[in-house]
This record gives sequence, structure tokens and C-alpha cells, in this order.
Amino acid sequence: MIEIERKFLVHSQQFKTDATSKTRIKQGFLNTDKARTVRIRLQDTNGFITVKGASSDNGLSRFEWEKEISKSDAEALLALCEVGVIDKIRHRVAVGNHVFEVDEFFGENAGLIVAEVELSHPNETFEKPKWLGKEVTGDVRYYNSQLSKQPYTTW
Amino acid sequence: MIEIERKFLVHSQQFKTDATSKTRIKQGFLNTDKARTVRIRLQDTNGFITVKGASSDNGLSRFEWEKEISKSDAEALLALCEVGVIDKIRHRVAVGNHVFEVDEFFGENAGLIVAEVELSHPNETFEKPKWLGKEVTGDVRYYNSQLSKQPYTTW
Repeated sequence: MIEIERKFLVHSQQFKTDATSKTRIKQGFLNTDKARTVRIRLQDTNGFITVKGASSDNGLSRFEWEKEISKSDAEALLALCEVGVIDKIRHRVAVGNHVFEVDEFFGENAGLIVAEVELSHPNETFEKPKWLGKEVTGDVRYYNSQLSKQPYTTW
Repeated sequence: MIEIERKFLVHSQQFKTDATSKTRIKQGFLNTDKARTVRIRLQDTNGFITVKGASSDNGLSRFEWEKEISKSDAEALLALCEVGVIDKIRHRVAVGNHVFEVDEFFGENAGLIVAEVELSHPNETFEKPKWLGKEVTGDVRYYNSQLSKQPYTTW
């Protein structure tokens, strides 16, 4: 239930050449408190409710609980969410032995592209593709919960 | 339907002799905002996550979505809840023609035991067992919502 993820900025569109899939994601929050974030997500036709706790270990690990819900439940719950529903395309990009999830944002966060890689332990090594920029792991400004309140275009 | 309930303090553990069932209840909130309340409840081994929206139609209708979750998921989520998780055992105790619900509190409300009896009209008589103490019907301090904010041990 503890996930280890490292997050990076992406400074070019080159990642799209190696993308194997893309998914439209709409997501909103029933709570943006970092100690108990409650997220509703609709991924194409699959809905999810996800609860995350506060970060520990300098942002490397964070409690996460997720349950699948129907598309209509997700739509009903998105309607209750706080202002600032996120709209993005998530691209999956295989690089070496890992798969990066690259989020290309639209709307008020247009221009922002962020890549995440999930690791099995904090010191695991991974191949860094050319399009990978500065690491922003643990930087709260790039949490989706923050991006819905303070969108990238307002920075 | 109007429900008529009378509430009393309980000053001894004697009620346990006549208890026919008991249920451990833990309940907390991931969000107490009335526009998007998120409640976690664990009733013995059954967990629930419940989302409620704002009331409409003068309080007659309120969006409610509930999903059953595992005991271990409920416990993990309760650990993330806002301060003031209620932890109690609800005992059912038959006395004459009535059933008392006796709530024995733990945690920050340890030491408090409260009994409720439901009546079909305000003047209905009922047998008062020896363990029944002072009546506290209508005293807001004993509402569960208040006990989570101002627990008994802080009085």
C-alpha cells in the first residue's frame, strides 16, 4: 500500500514517439487536505475513488488506497468535487525496464507535462530518457490536488 | 417519521449481564464539509465508505453514495481521518418490553456510557433498570458529532 514514485518535468513532446497507450483522465477532489486527500477519477470508462495520506520519507512514500467504481458513480461524485477538476491525457511510455506515466495537462494547466516512474525500493535505478527534465519528487506544487487550486498557467 | 428517543447516563457495568449483542463501531471523517462529507465506518468486520452531498429540498433529499470495504481497508482509512474518531461498543440490552442501546465509549471518550431507548410516543412508560442514571435527552454535549470535537475526557 506504500508507493514509491519519482516525478520529473518533461521539456519536449518527444516522449510521444515511444508512447504505447494514452488515456483521457478527468479527476476531481472531495478533499484536497494533504493528510487525507480523496480523489475521484474517470479514466475513459473506468471510475476510481482514491484516498492518499500524508507523505513520509521526504515525499518518497505515501499511503494510498483505491477502489474501482462505475462510470456513472464517478460522474456523480465528480459533480460533488471541489472546483478545479483536472483534465489530462496520460501517456504510457516504456523506457528500459520501467514504464513512465507522462501526464499532458489541458485547460488551466496547459503547458505542463510531468512524468512519473514507480519503483520497488527507494534506491532502485532506472534509465533516464532524453526528454526527462528536472526532478520534482515531493514538490507539492505538482501534486494534482495543488494543480487544481493553483493551476500551472497562474504561476 | 419522528423518532422519540430518551437518553440516559449509565453509572455501572451491570447492564452487561443482560446484553444480548454487542457491536464495535469506529467512525471517522475524511471530510466534514457538508457539501462533500466522506465518512469511514467499521462495524465489527464490515467497513463502509460513504459520501454525502449537500442537502436539497429543505433537507428532504441528500445525495448519498456508499460502498462496502474490507475491515483492513477501513482500519487503514480510519487512521487518516480527522481528529475525533469515535470508538465505541454498542450493546443491545432487553429490559421489559424495550431494547436499550447502550454505547460504551473508548479512546478520548473513555469512561462515558450512554443508554438510549426508543419510544413510540413521548409519554410511553418503560421499565428503568438499576444501572440507568441521570437523563441527558437533548443535551448536545452527548451528541456523537460533539463528542468527536469535544471528547468526554476533556470536560
